[in-house]
Amino acid sequence: MAKFLTNKDENYSQWYNDLVIKADLAENSAVRGCMVIKPYGYAIWEKIQAELDRLFKATGHVNAYFPLFIPKSFFSKEAAHVEGFAKECAVVTHYRLKKDENGKGIVVDPTAKLEEELIIRPTSETIIWHSYKNWIKSYRDLPILINQWANVVRWEMRTRLFLRTTEFLWQEGHTAHATREEAVEEAERMINVYAGFAENSMAVPVIIGSKSENERFAGALDTYAIEALMQDGKALQAGTSHFLGQNFAKAFDVQFTDKTGKLEYVWATSWGTSTRLMGAIIMAHADNNGLVLPPKLAPIQVVIIPIYKNDEQLVTISQTAKKIKSELEALGVSVKYDDRDTNKPGWKFAEYELKGVPVRLAIGPRDIENNTIEVARRDTLTKETISLDVIKEHIPKLLDDIQANIYNKALIFRKENTFYVDKWDEFVKVLDNQGGFIMAHWDGTVETEEKIKDETKATIRCIPFDTPEEDGVCIYSGKPSKRRVLFARSY
Amino acid sequence: MAKFLTNKDENYSQWYNDLVIKADLAENSAVRGCMVIKPYGYAIWEKIQAELDRLFKATGHVNAYFPLFIPKSFFSKEAAHVEGFAKECAVVTHYRLKKDENGKGIVVDPTAKLEEELIIRPTSETIIWHSYKNWIKSYRDLPILINQWANVVRWEMRTRLFLRTTEFLWQEGHTAHATREEAVEEAERMINVYAGFAENSMAVPVIIGSKSENERFAGALDTYAIEALMQDGKALQAGTSHFLGQNFAKAFDVQFTDKTGKLEYVWATSWGTSTRLMGAIIMAHADNNGLVLPPKLAPIQVVIIPIYKNDEQLVTISQTAKKIKSELEALGVSVKYDDRDTNKPGWKFAEYELKGVPVRLAIGPRDIENNTIEVARRDTLTKETISLDVIKEHIPKLLDDIQANIYNKALIFRKENTFYVDKWDEFVKVLDNQGGFIMAHWDGTVETEEKIKDETKATIRCIPFDTPEEDGVCIYSGKPSKRRVLFARSY
Repeated sequence: MAKFLTNKDENYSQWYNDLVIKADLAENSAVRGCMVIKPYGYAIWEKIQAELDRLFKATGHVNAYFPLFIPKSFFSKEAAHVEGFAKECAVVTHYRLKKDENGKGIVVDPTAKLEEELIIRPTSETIIWHSYKNWIKSYRDLPILINQWANVVRWEMRTRLFLRTTEFLWQEGHTAHATREEAVEEAERMINVYAGFAENSMAVPVIIGSKSENERFAGALDTYAIEALMQDGKALQAGTSHFLGQNFAKAFDVQFTDKTGKLEYVWATSWGTSTRLMGAIIMAHADNNGLVLPPKLAPIQVVIIPIYKNDEQLVTISQTAKKIKSELEALGVSVKYDDRDTNKPGWKFAEYELKGVPVRLAIGPRDIENNTIEVARRDTLTKETISLDVIKEHIPKLLDDIQANIYNKALIFRKENTFYVDKWDEFVKVLDNQGGFIMAHWDGTVETEEKIKDETKATIRCIPFDTPEEDGVCIYSGKPSKRRVLFARSY
Repeated sequence: MAKFLTNKDENYSQWYNDLVIKADLAENSAVRGCMVIKPYGYAIWEKIQAELDRLFKATGHVNAYFPLFIPKSFFSKEAAHVEGFAKECAVVTHYRLKKDENGKGIVVDPTAKLEEELIIRPTSETIIWHSYKNWIKSYRDLPILINQWANVVRWEMRTRLFLRTTEFLWQEGHTAHATREEAVEEAERMINVYAGFAENSMAVPVIIGSKSENERFAGALDTYAIEALMQDGKALQAGTSHFLGQNFAKAFDVQFTDKTGKLEYVWATSWGTSTRLMGAIIMAHADNNGLVLPPKLAPIQVVIIPIYKNDEQLVTISQTAKKIKSELEALGVSVKYDDRDTNKPGWKFAEYELKGVPVRLAIGPRDIENNTIEVARRDTLTKETISLDVIKEHIPKLLDDIQANIYNKALIFRKENTFYVDKWDEFVKVLDNQGGFIMAHWDGTVETEEKIKDETKATIRCIPFDTPEEDGVCIYSGKPSKRRVLFARSY
């Protein structure tokens, strides 16, 4: 176990923070609640971006860019929206600094006050729908299928690296449609894109469902979410997709002429995922030795470490190592050969375990003699020695195995930690003792939902799409219920 | 000529604005000075980003992300830096909105005032060097070779789409080195990377040189720039790379232990290019029919347009067109087949000319009979009919030809509009009559530079790296000079 990490079972929260810092993923900045994403962390984010971007384009979307600033008046146009975001907005009030006349350094120039304050976007529905008003006249202009990669700011009081930061990076899709059906279909399509990405690339199984009214996005008629279970038994919302109805079209007066010549308001969706996904990857797979990265998102998939006693040995080993490196790279595998003489092999082993590199190859003089190499996999921490002749076949298969294995491990963990509960005292006990997902009946009211939250800190994570109808009684109120919903404490 | 564009020779500035709007590249937003980059414009920017990112990584750089906000106190630490940027800073002073008690809607909550104001980054040296202080202890921690893709804000009074906007997208490299020599080498390397990108990808020839002291980046010891000549005879600075000496290391107290155990301040560079490159591409190549995109940065390289009178013809043509599309795509060519029945071929021809698509293929029933296709190139507006059998060989070669041709055209234009001038009245006349680059002697003083600027609006764009030493007298003061420098009016 990496000694510098707090033990995961003793203090999960501290273990997480240690890991983010020690694995060089990110750190807190001098600006309250804002993080610095360091190169290794950013390299994982680039992999996430590349694959999501590919999936968005494959489903017909294009990228664009809208302003960072939102005039305060825009913000107020959709009532629920401003209600949801007003309390956490960074506000620009001035546009110039000047030298203080009393020699107190640099101060804000009071003569450079903006007539109307600008909000740093916490999300871009308002500024985007203001533009869409000019873009949409006829059904021929629809659908609009736009995504934006951007930074957003929500002034959070309690922040945690990747999970909740004042500024974060994300993508936000904003689509406009001629019919309700098409918009609903789009919102569903995108939550499925997110789910596919989480499961296939992040190796994180997710539950797809609708949010309860209480947990909906501010301004949405329906919010779909994917919910993942972390190793400490808490849920993490990893992506949301909103059916916005005609709310923003009405707020910004965006109407179009349909095929029959009738004026109609446009239907909308929005959907987003953020750097929070980094937190999900870490918390779903990592262990006391460090990160366990899914091969599909690992910036380095294979590291090769030479074991040698003298320069002569290193020369021979390097020849073989470089050959393996270029052969694997030709197959699309990303490989690092670490022949630095500043650190010993043992140190390097620990370092790449900490950084979650899926496969480690070690090669020494005896391997050269025997035409073999030692292969260690990060997920199981097991080692085997294989012939160099089969390495080109073995490694890609091994990476696939690891990807599948960590997904299955997470899926089994989720199964073992999903509880079908029918009694209130058991509900409370499960939450307090082990956490996890609880499938329980709920009477469908906001009041009950809030009471459950107040008493247990558990919320309705979602109403899963694939849960069958089932007669039952609400876990809290005892009133009748038609289906179970997913409860958990969450990040 | 596209009738909806202002004639380039009559009103260049209006032609530019028309083109940006009509070609769907960008538009002004509701926020003063901020633009919306529309999908077609953003698709070009994505191509620019992808290639620059590849070049940065090939030269050993990695990406990271630092906060949008800079505490005001950081900003003040490097004297020249704050002097250069203070007058154009967007300042965040509050972090919450609330409902007005007098029912006047949403207002800034006065109780949510920040203790220290936050500046939206106009550039990130200060926040980054604050982090570097914690990252750098020993020579082993150097060099740091980091790039960031980000949005920045400079409160400009007069803005123009892509060329000068309050918010813009850019990349900023920030490197840290153990020695002066290494930092200078890095700054030079990166200006050469920019020059290579401008010439090879954008097809825009550039002059590489140093800025005069007056035109240096605020906080730099030396600024290198690439300067391109636009079709109206004005210069456009397309990228800068700064040797920052130890200024930021001293301002943020970043020292390292060198190999001999001595404490030294770290040496720095920074370098950036922005969405302004979009303006350079437009203004270097476009004509009265619209954009002329260099094939290497064109989102659509080839468009295929069917010419048909009935559905039966369309079916046959579509078969052939789709076959061509997939064959070309297999070669890495991006192809759009536009079989929309909402617009006539003539309309489509004009549309793709406006959008600068390098190659247009038109195919009608007679082509099908003859096994031919009509190939039109955007740069020369010429057409030829070729056999379908040779299309796989012809198109990639044609794209290369177009890329080379528009570069050569721009190079010839620059040669014809670069003037070696030795008399002041000729200097003034050239500027007023045709503009262009003027190579002239200068006495090396800030006073003369500023007088020339005041009298003619021309500035020293750079002191070109490759100009030979040559005895002469200053164009303005008559004092002795050792080499010519590059003057022009500029964007």
